[in-house]
Amino acid sequence: MGVVIPLGENKPEAASIAALSALVKSGMERVNELILSKAGSDVEMIPEVANHLISSGGKRLRPMITLAAADMFGYRGEGHVKLATSVEFMHTATLLHDDVVDESDMRRSKPTARMIWGNQASVLVGDFLLGQAFKMMVEVGSLDALDVLSTAASVIAEGEVMQLAAAKNLETTEDEYLAVIKAKTAALFSAAAEVGPIIAGASKSERAALRSYGLNLGLAFQLVDDALDYGGNAKDLGKNTGDDFREGKITLPVVLAYRRGTDAERDFWKAGIEKGENGNRELETARSLMLKYAALPDTIQRARHFGEIARDALAPLKPSPQKDALLDVVEFCISRVN
Amino acid sequence: MGVVIPLGENKPEAASIAALSALVKSGMERVNELILSKAGSDVEMIPEVANHLISSGGKRLRPMITLAAADMFGYRGEGHVKLATSVEFMHTATLLHDDVVDESDMRRSKPTARMIWGNQASVLVGDFLLGQAFKMMVEVGSLDALDVLSTAASVIAEGEVMQLAAAKNLETTEDEYLAVIKAKTAALFSAAAEVGPIIAGASKSERAALRSYGLNLGLAFQLVDDALDYGGNAKDLGKNTGDDFREGKITLPVVLAYRRGTDAERDFWKAGIEKGENGNRELETARSLMLKYAALPDTIQRARHFGEIARDALAPLKPSPQKDALLDVVEFCISRVN
Repeated sequence: MGVVIPLGENKPEAASIAALSALVKSGMERVNELILSKAGSDVEMIPEVANHLISSGGKRLRPMITLAAADMFGYRGEGHVKLATSVEFMHTATLLHDDVVDESDMRRSKPTARMIWGNQASVLVGDFLLGQAFKMMVEVGSLDALDVLSTAASVIAEGEVMQLAAAKNLETTEDEYLAVIKAKTAALFSAAAEVGPIIAGASKSERAALRSYGLNLGLAFQLVDDALDYGGNAKDLGKNTGDDFREGKITLPVVLAYRRGTDAERDFWKAGIEKGENGNRELETARSLMLKYAALPDTIQRARHFGEIARDALAPLKPSPQKDALLDVVEFCISRVN
Repeated sequence: MGVVIPLGENKPEAASIAALSALVKSGMERVNELILSKAGSDVEMIPEVANHLISSGGKRLRPMITLAAADMFGYRGEGHVKLATSVEFMHTATLLHDDVVDESDMRRSKPTARMIWGNQASVLVGDFLLGQAFKMMVEVGSLDALDVLSTAASVIAEGEVMQLAAAKNLETTEDEYLAVIKAKTAALFSAAAEVGPIIAGASKSERAALRSYGLNLGLAFQLVDDALDYGGNAKDLGKNTGDDFREGKITLPVVLAYRRGTDAERDFWKAGIEKGENGNRELETARSLMLKYAALPDTIQRARHFGEIARDALAPLKPSPQKDALLDVVEFCISRVN
């Protein structure tokens, strides 16, 4: 049923994270072991809830980036495995809390933890994973890495509150929306990338390069995600398409379609986003308005813009397999819309 | 209306935290400033929610303990102020999340944040404060203090999940209950006390003394709190008495009354705790069963036991005004039942 929306055109052959996966394979095996052991607890509910989400097949992009960013500067040691695991735990904790905040019932094609164990367990197991993340970082003993990751933790939460405060506000500008996703999504990508050179003892400008790479990759990643929620299909996404609409979430496609629309169309958005008139019929209307105003391809175009910045951030670094793999990731994130 | 329950007998003259407050007065002024500045954010909702709870007149016992425990070993510097503020933020974050988990509507005589701003804001602002707490700890730069506080963060969350898993289980033994409150309450008191000697560069045995003091003080504190919920009155407590009963919480007074009761009485507890038959009339019955089995004075007696251990933990330390003040705190916590 419904409208098929072209998300872009002339896309290059689908990129993949295969090169990255291959490069960090052995490190990721240790990350996966550490995830299992640190999500463990004598309190049974903790590994149950944590593993439900952890084993549900996220790509583990963030910890792979941490490992590659450390390897890239010749890091020898195990600290990057702990930092990568910390990053993944911070991400998992955020997802657990997000599902409570958004009242989501599906994630990655499975019922959310809160649907099975309740909001209470999701809040508390998220807190536990965050605590474990900090413990691991402290074990690594790099105050600079701790600074970057603890700052990210604050910024992420701040971004989530910002999003909550701006919830359902259709007057949100593109800039305001970018500030939200910079905090809630890009800050963790940025920290994940930056702790690699930190632990490897790389230079200040190398740290800055990876920080900028992560930040812009994160922005591109989130924007593509926003477009996919209206233009993808549930099977590929592992979540319900149209979730953002049904939850009344302001994302860039909505911001663009709203701003570019007629008064009557803006009334439609107000009814849908603010007043909860968001059934299947309204979702189809939303999609056709996005088609009318090219809101999805333009969202992808914005994502490409940040992808370019991410690529240029790495440009001055000397050639390495890790550098190539990280560049592939940029293209992969954007080409998910294929 | 109702039963008046004697909570103890032959109590010494009510102790106070006046000596402690006086000793750490100037440090606490800096803590209070730091609380205000670090709970600040351009995202308006954050300081609103945070200050609602922060300004609602908690005693700030934990940060005072941190300051005194650092001063006690001659600490000169400002790190203890940051650590004390971190401890208070960890506590505040826990309260925000607890109110969501327990679905509480009142705390410290005010509506809880979740009643005003919703569960979502309470979860996220709690996360933000936790992030800010870690940032401040990292600024202090003591890996030992970071280790103690990040471990406490994990343990607290683990204790909360343990409590959730044991929720409404009347077969909980006293030992199991103690394991819960050791994690969810005593761990933070213990960490608050231990980071004082850590930052002051005190010896291993001095660290151990303060750690043990905090842990046992925390146990005593929680047990007295449990008794007060059945035996105190709302005005003194700043929360509704009977909340624990209405929320179906297992606490030591319930554990004792249940285990000591007849079969018929155990059926009453099952109906009250497990099936939610917990109106005012049932609360009165609960109180009279506690009276019958001396559940409240015996809970206080257990608290005294841990209070004694806390006192003896400090015994080997050389005399100081801080030591005297911390000993007073033990008596204060227990004599709250007067």
